[in-house]
Amino acid sequence: MIGGGEGSFIGPVHRMAARLDGMVELVSGAFSSNPAISELTGKREGLNSDRIYGNWQDMIRNESKLPDDIKPHFIAIVTPNHLHYGPAKMALESGFNVLCDKPLCMSVAEAIDLFDTIEECGKLFCLTHNYTGYPMVKRAREMVLGGEIGEIRKIAVEYFQGWLSYPVELSGNKQAEWRSDPDKAGIAGAMADIGTHAFNLAEYVSGLEVAELAADMRSVIGSRSLDDDGSILLRFENNACGTLLASQIALGEENNLSLRIYGDKGSISWRQMEPNSLLVRWSDKPMQIYRTATAFSEIGSAAPFHTRIPAGHPEGFIEAFANLYRNFAAHIISVLEGKKPDSTLDYPGIYEGVRGMKFLEAAVASSSGNSTWKTI
Amino acid sequence: MIGGGEGSFIGPVHRMAARLDGMVELVSGAFSSNPAISELTGKREGLNSDRIYGNWQDMIRNESKLPDDIKPHFIAIVTPNHLHYGPAKMALESGFNVLCDKPLCMSVAEAIDLFDTIEECGKLFCLTHNYTGYPMVKRAREMVLGGEIGEIRKIAVEYFQGWLSYPVELSGNKQAEWRSDPDKAGIAGAMADIGTHAFNLAEYVSGLEVAELAADMRSVIGSRSLDDDGSILLRFENNACGTLLASQIALGEENNLSLRIYGDKGSISWRQMEPNSLLVRWSDKPMQIYRTATAFSEIGSAAPFHTRIPAGHPEGFIEAFANLYRNFAAHIISVLEGKKPDSTLDYPGIYEGVRGMKFLEAAVASSSGNSTWKTI
Amino acid sequence: MIGGGEGSFIGPVHRMAARLDGMVELVSGAFSSNPAISELTGKREGLNSDRIYGNWQDMIRNESKLPDDIKPHFIAIVTPNHLHYGPAKMALESGFNVLCDKPLCMSVAEAIDLFDTIEECGKLFCLTHNYTGYPMVKRAREMVLGGEIGEIRKIAVEYFQGWLSYPVELSGNKQAEWRSDPDKAGIAGAMADIGTHAFNLAEYVSGLEVAELAADMRSVIGSRSLDDDGSILLRFENNACGTLLASQIALGEENNLSLRIYGDKGSISWRQMEPNSLLVRWSDKPMQIYRTATAFSEIGSAAPFHTRIPAGHPEGFIEAFANLYRNFAAHIISVLEGKKPDSTLDYPGIYEGVRGMKFLEAAVASSSGNSTWKTI
Amino acid sequence: MIGGGEGSFIGPVHRMAARLDGMVELVSGAFSSNPAISELTGKREGLNSDRIYGNWQDMIRNESKLPDDIKPHFIAIVTPNHLHYGPAKMALESGFNVLCDKPLCMSVAEAIDLFDTIEECGKLFCLTHNYTGYPMVKRAREMVLGGEIGEIRKIAVEYFQGWLSYPVELSGNKQAEWRSDPDKAGIAGAMADIGTHAFNLAEYVSGLEVAELAADMRSVIGSRSLDDDGSILLRFENNACGTLLASQIALGEENNLSLRIYGDKGSISWRQMEPNSLLVRWSDKPMQIYRTATAFSEIGSAAPFHTRIPAGHPEGFIEAFANLYRNFAAHIISVLEGKKPDSTLDYPGIYEGVRGMKFLEAAVASSSGNSTWKTI
Repeated sequence: MIGGGEGSFIGPVHRMAARLDGMVELVSGAFSSNPAISELTGKREGLNSDRIYGNWQDMIRNESKLPDDIKPHFIAIVTPNHLHYGPAKMALESGFNVLCDKPLCMSVAEAIDLFDTIEECGKLFCLTHNYTGYPMVKRAREMVLGGEIGEIRKIAVEYFQGWLSYPVELSGNKQAEWRSDPDKAGIAGAMADIGTHAFNLAEYVSGLEVAELAADMRSVIGSRSLDDDGSILLRFENNACGTLLASQIALGEENNLSLRIYGDKGSISWRQMEPNSLLVRWSDKPMQIYRTATAFSEIGSAAPFHTRIPAGHPEGFIEAFANLYRNFAAHIISVLEGKKPDSTLDYPGIYEGVRGMKFLEAAVASSSGNSTWKTI
Repeated sequence: MIGGGEGSFIGPVHRMAARLDGMVELVSGAFSSNPAISELTGKREGLNSDRIYGNWQDMIRNESKLPDDIKPHFIAIVTPNHLHYGPAKMALESGFNVLCDKPLCMSVAEAIDLFDTIEECGKLFCLTHNYTGYPMVKRAREMVLGGEIGEIRKIAVEYFQGWLSYPVELSGNKQAEWRSDPDKAGIAGAMADIGTHAFNLAEYVSGLEVAELAADMRSVIGSRSLDDDGSILLRFENNACGTLLASQIALGEENNLSLRIYGDKGSISWRQMEPNSLLVRWSDKPMQIYRTATAFSEIGSAAPFHTRIPAGHPEGFIEAFANLYRNFAAHIISVLEGKKPDSTLDYPGIYEGVRGMKFLEAAVASSSGNSTWKTI
Repeated sequence: MIGGGEGSFIGPVHRMAARLDGMVELVSGAFSSNPAISELTGKREGLNSDRIYGNWQDMIRNESKLPDDIKPHFIAIVTPNHLHYGPAKMALESGFNVLCDKPLCMSVAEAIDLFDTIEECGKLFCLTHNYTGYPMVKRAREMVLGGEIGEIRKIAVEYFQGWLSYPVELSGNKQAEWRSDPDKAGIAGAMADIGTHAFNLAEYVSGLEVAELAADMRSVIGSRSLDDDGSILLRFENNACGTLLASQIALGEENNLSLRIYGDKGSISWRQMEPNSLLVRWSDKPMQIYRTATAFSEIGSAAPFHTRIPAGHPEGFIEAFANLYRNFAAHIISVLEGKKPDSTLDYPGIYEGVRGMKFLEAAVASSSGNSTWKTI
Repeated sequence: MIGGGEGSFIGPVHRMAARLDGMVELVSGAFSSNPAISELTGKREGLNSDRIYGNWQDMIRNESKLPDDIKPHFIAIVTPNHLHYGPAKMALESGFNVLCDKPLCMSVAEAIDLFDTIEECGKLFCLTHNYTGYPMVKRAREMVLGGEIGEIRKIAVEYFQGWLSYPVELSGNKQAEWRSDPDKAGIAGAMADIGTHAFNLAEYVSGLEVAELAADMRSVIGSRSLDDDGSILLRFENNACGTLLASQIALGEENNLSLRIYGDKGSISWRQMEPNSLLVRWSDKPMQIYRTATAFSEIGSAAPFHTRIPAGHPEGFIEAFANLYRNFAAHIISVLEGKKPDSTLDYPGIYEGVRGMKFLEAAVASSSGNSTWKTI
C-alpha cells in the first residue's frame, strides 16, 4: 500500500475493505513520505520492518524483486491525487497490478498515458469508485442495461456534502488541506473529489456516456482557490439530458449521493445514505422497492453476488468498498489460475479513470467560459 | 368564478379550498366558454340561474352592476393561461378584487400592464402559488428571513412530475391538451405550469431574487412544441447559486416539489409530498424536524396561523390552498372594515406574477440561445 | 349539529369535513349547553337565530316539526361521550338520521339499546371512525378481503399520542378535562378515546373480529383516574393473534396510528401520519407501495372513490373525515331517491359502535383482573 | 472458534467482524462436529492443519497446552444453542476467555452455573448481543442513563422477521432446522432466537430490568413445536410498562428490530434497519435526529468511540458486530497489560446471559399458563 499513514481517512477504509473478506493481506507499505509515520503505521499494522518503506519508489523497486510467493499481487495507491500517476505508472511498469484511489490523476494527458501503459503491460487496474460496489447499484445497472425502464430520457445525479462549509483547511484539517491545494488536488476541488464519483455512477448505471456539459462552478469560501460547489447541465450520447450537482458547502449534508434515472417505461432512484433500497417506479403499476438480499427470484444475479448477509442486516460503505477489493482480487486469482474471469465481479478500471479526467477538464473549461457547452 | 367547468382539475380544487373555512361563498360563475357546460356546473354548485353566465365578459359586466350586498367581493379566475389577462384586467377595472391562477399571463408585457392596472385601481390581487400556503413553508421563510440559517449560499429547487411521459394530449387528456398548446399555455410548457411554482417558492422562502439564469429546456415527446423537461442554473442577487429543475416526463414522479436552502449557519429542506415536516440542519448540532402543530414555543407564529388541526393529523394540499383563500378573504375583510391587515396572513400577488413572467421569458431566451446566461 | 361550540376540537373538524364537498349544509345547532356559547358559535357559522338552540332537547323537538324542505336530513352529534346516547336516541326516535362521534356511548347496554332503536326506526346511523375514510385504508381492506395477502396470521395495531404526558386537564385544557373525567368519558380514558379507533381499524381492514383479549391498562399520571396508557394482547376469531397498543403519554408522539396485517401470502402496513402510502410486502417479490391516485389499473375501485385530487397532492385528515360525511350524505340521498346505495361508499355504523363498547368493557375487565383473557 | 463451518450464517459474520479492525486473528478452530467440514472451513480460512480440530473437546484440550505466545487469547463459540454451555464451561475452566453467541445456553440453571464458573475463574466473557454495538444504541443508552429523557414510563421493543413464514425447516434450510428443534434450540424458538435480543436491547438502553411479564406465544406453522410468534406485556422495576413483540412469521419483514423508550421529558426511537439515525423527541421542542459521526459537540462520547468513518458513509451490521469483538479484544489487552479497561468499550457479558435465560423461562411459563404474569 502506498499512502494511508496516520491521519489519513481513506487509508484505513482501504485496509478495512481489504481485510473484510479475508482474501487480501497487507504485506508491505510506504504509508507516508515521512518515514517515521510510515514506520508507525506499518508497525501498527503488524508488518515486518523490511517491508515498510519511507518512499514509494523504494517500495516498488524492492518489492518487484521479491520472489513470487512473497511479492504482493497488487499495489494499492491511496495517496492524494498528485501522487497517483507516478506510483501507478512505476508499479505497472514494474509488473504489478494496481488498485488506485480516484480521481485517476491530474490531467487527461496523464490518464491517457496510464491507459496506454496498461494496454502495453497487460496488468490489471482498479479505480476505487467505490459507490459502484453497492448491491443495489449493481441491481440498478442490471435493470437499466436490461431495458427494464426503457429508453433513458433524464438523469439527475447529486452529491452534496457540508464538511467544507467553513475554511477548515486553514485550521488543521488534513483532509481539507490537500483537497483545497491545486498542487495536490489538481484542477478541481469538490468536482474532483466527489463530482467524479457522481459522474462515474451516472455513466455506470445508465450505460450511457455524457456527450457535453455546461458547468457553473465556484468557490464559496473566499480563501479557497478550487471549487467547493458546482452545478452542471448534462447531455448524454442518446440525447437524454440531466444534471450533476456537487457541493461540499451544502451545510448539514453528510454524504448525500443520489441517482435518479428516468426511462420511458420506468425509473429508478437510489440514495447512498440508505443504500440497501432501490426505488423503482412504473407508469401504471405501484412503485417497488428492491432491497438487498430479498426477492431472490426477481432480483437478478448482480446484487446477490455483492451481498454478504441476510436481508435487513444493513450492509454499508465498507462492505461496498470491500466488493471492489474482492472483485479485483478474484480477477487477479482467475488470471493466476488461467481461468476466465466472472463478468459479474466487475470493478471500475482505467477507462473510467480516463472518462473522469475528461469530465473534469470539460467542467473546468465550461465553467471558466461562463457555462458554455463543452463536449467530453 | 371564471373557468372551472366540468372536466377542469383546478376548478374543483379552488372551490374546495374556498369552502373549507366557511369564509367564502360561490355566488356566480362563467365556468366555461360553452354556455351549456357553464350552466351544468353552476347548477351543480347550487347557483341561481341568473348568476350563471355563458362568458366572462357578461359576468363581469352584470355582476359589477349588482348592489354591494349581493355583488361578489372578488372574482376567481381559474382558466387556462391565455384567459387570465383579459378577465383579470376587466374585473379589476370593473372594481373587483381578483384571485387568479398561475402563471399570471402570457407575457411580461401583459404582466406589467396588470401590475400598473392594480396600482391605479387599488384593488387586491392574489396569484395562487398555492405551495406558499403550507405551514412549514411559512415556517421555513420565517427562519430564513430571521437569519436563523445565516447568509444563503445555495438553493436547490425541484419540481418533478411524470404525467406527461406520454403524449396524452393526443388521446383526450384535457389537462394535457391546453398545457401543450402554445396558444393557450404561452411560451413555455412544464416551465410555465410547474417551473413558475418552483421559482416562486425559492424566491418566497429565501427572500432573494434570481439575478440571472442559464436554461436547458426541451421537449422529450416529439409531437410536443412546448418544453416538458428543463434544467436551469441560477444565480441570486446575493451571489448565492442554485438550480431549478422542472420536468413533467420524470416517469413515476407524482408531484415532487422540493426546496433546499443552504446558509452559512444552517440549512432547510422541505418536500411537498410530506408537507408537514421541515428538516433543519446545523453545523454542529443534531438535525431538527419541525412539524406542523408542534413545539409551539419554538415554531414561531407564521406556521400556527396556517394550521387548523392538532399535530399528526395531516393537513394537505387543499388546506394549503385554502390558506390563500382565507388570507385573501381576510385582507378583503380588513379593507372593508377599515382595519390594518394582518401581515402574517400573506399571499402571493401581482409582484410575484410579474417575477414569474420575467423568469419564463428569460428561461426561454436562454434555452433558445443554448443556455447563455440571461438576467431577469 | 349538537355540540361543537367554541373551544371544541372536533366540532370545527366536523364542520370543515361537512363543507368540503359542498354536499352538506349546516342549518341548525345546539352547540353547547351554555346558550350564550351556542349562540356565539351559531352566529359565527351564519345560522338564523331561530335555528340556534340552548339545548339539544329543544333542538330535536323543534327541528322535527319543521317542514321537510327545511328540516335537516341528519343530525350530527359531536359532544363528549356521555352526551351521545341521549341525543342519538331522541333524534332517531324523532325521525332523524344520525351521525355521531365515537366512542358510541357509555356502556354496552346503551349501545345495544341504540342498535335496537335503529333496527326499529330504520333510520341511518354513522359513527365517525374517521380513519376508515382514508383512500389507502380502503385499498388495504379491499386487498385483505379479496384474499390478496392470504389467510391472516397476525395483526399489530398501535395508536400513540403524547399530548397527555402531563396533567394538562388540571391547567385548563378543555379537551383533556372531559376525557379524563369518568362522568363524561366513561369507563376508559385513552382506550376509549383512541383505542377504539385502533380496534375499529383493525377489524375494518382485516374483516376479522377480535374473539378475546388480555389487557394491561394504567394511569401513568397519578392524578388521573382513567387509563392513559395500555397494551392489549388480541386473539381473533380465525386464530390470528395480535396486539393493540394505545397511549396518550407516549411523549413526542403526535397522532401515530398504524396498522400492520400479516397474511400467509403477503402483508400490509399503513401509517396515518403518511396516509397516502400503503406498503405491501410479499414472500418473494419486491415490496410495493400503493399511493393515493396512482396505478389506476391495479389499485382497485375503493381507493379512487375516496380520492379528490391527483397523485402527489397530499390528501389528509380532513379529506378522510369528509369521506364519511360524503358517503353518509350519499346514502341518505339514495334513500330519498329510492335508489340502491353504492356499496363502495361505506361508513362505520351502529354495529361498529356496539363492537367498540364491547371491546372497552372487555379491556377494562381484563385489566382489572390482572390481564386475564376476556372474550368480546 | 468453535462452530461456524460451511453452511453456517453466523460463523462468517463472526469472522468478518473479527477481521474488520485487524485486532483479532483466527488461529484455530473446531468448525463442525463433522471433521471433514471442519477441515474444509479451516483450510479455506488458511489455518494450519494442526490447529483444525474435529471436535471442540480436542480443541480446547490441545490449545490450552500451547505456549502463551501461540495460544489463542479467547475462544469464540458460534454453535447452535445446545452447544454453548459445554464448550463455554470447558474453555473457561481451561483458562480461556470466551466469546459466545446468544442465547447463552439452554436453561437458567446452566446460565447460573456459567456465571459461577466465571466468578471463580476470573476469565472474561462476551455474549454477542450484537445490536448493542451500534453507535446510535450507545448514544441512546448514554442519553437515557444520563437522565436526558427523564423518568422512563414506557418501552416498546419489537423484533419482526418473516423468514419462517413457511416450514422451510422441512425443505433443507439449515438455519431453520436447528432453530425449530427443541433439542438444539431449547425451550423457545423465535423468543430465544430474536426475542432475547429485543429483551437485552430494552434492558441495555433503558438501564432498567423487567420485573414481570405476561406472554402469549404460539407456533403459527403447525408442524413446528417451538414458538414462531409471540407478544409479551412487560412491567419494569420502576413501574414503567411496555411490550416486547417478536415474530419470525411476519411475512415481508426482514430484520425489523426497533426500540422506543418514552420518558417524562423526552423519548427516543431507534430502528436497526436504519441504524445510523436516532430519533429524539421532546415535549415542546422540535424533534431531533442524532446521526452517526455528526454533531460531535453534542453527541457524547459513546457513539464516536464506536464509529469508524465519517458521517453519511453508512456503517452497518458487520461494523456493529465488530464493535463487540473490538471492545472484548481491548478488554483482554488491558488485562494483559495490567491496565484499567476503558468503560466506554463495553460489551454484553454473563450477567446479560443469565437475564436472557430468566426471561425465556418466565415467558414460556407465562404463555403455558395462558398469559399469567410471571416475575423474572
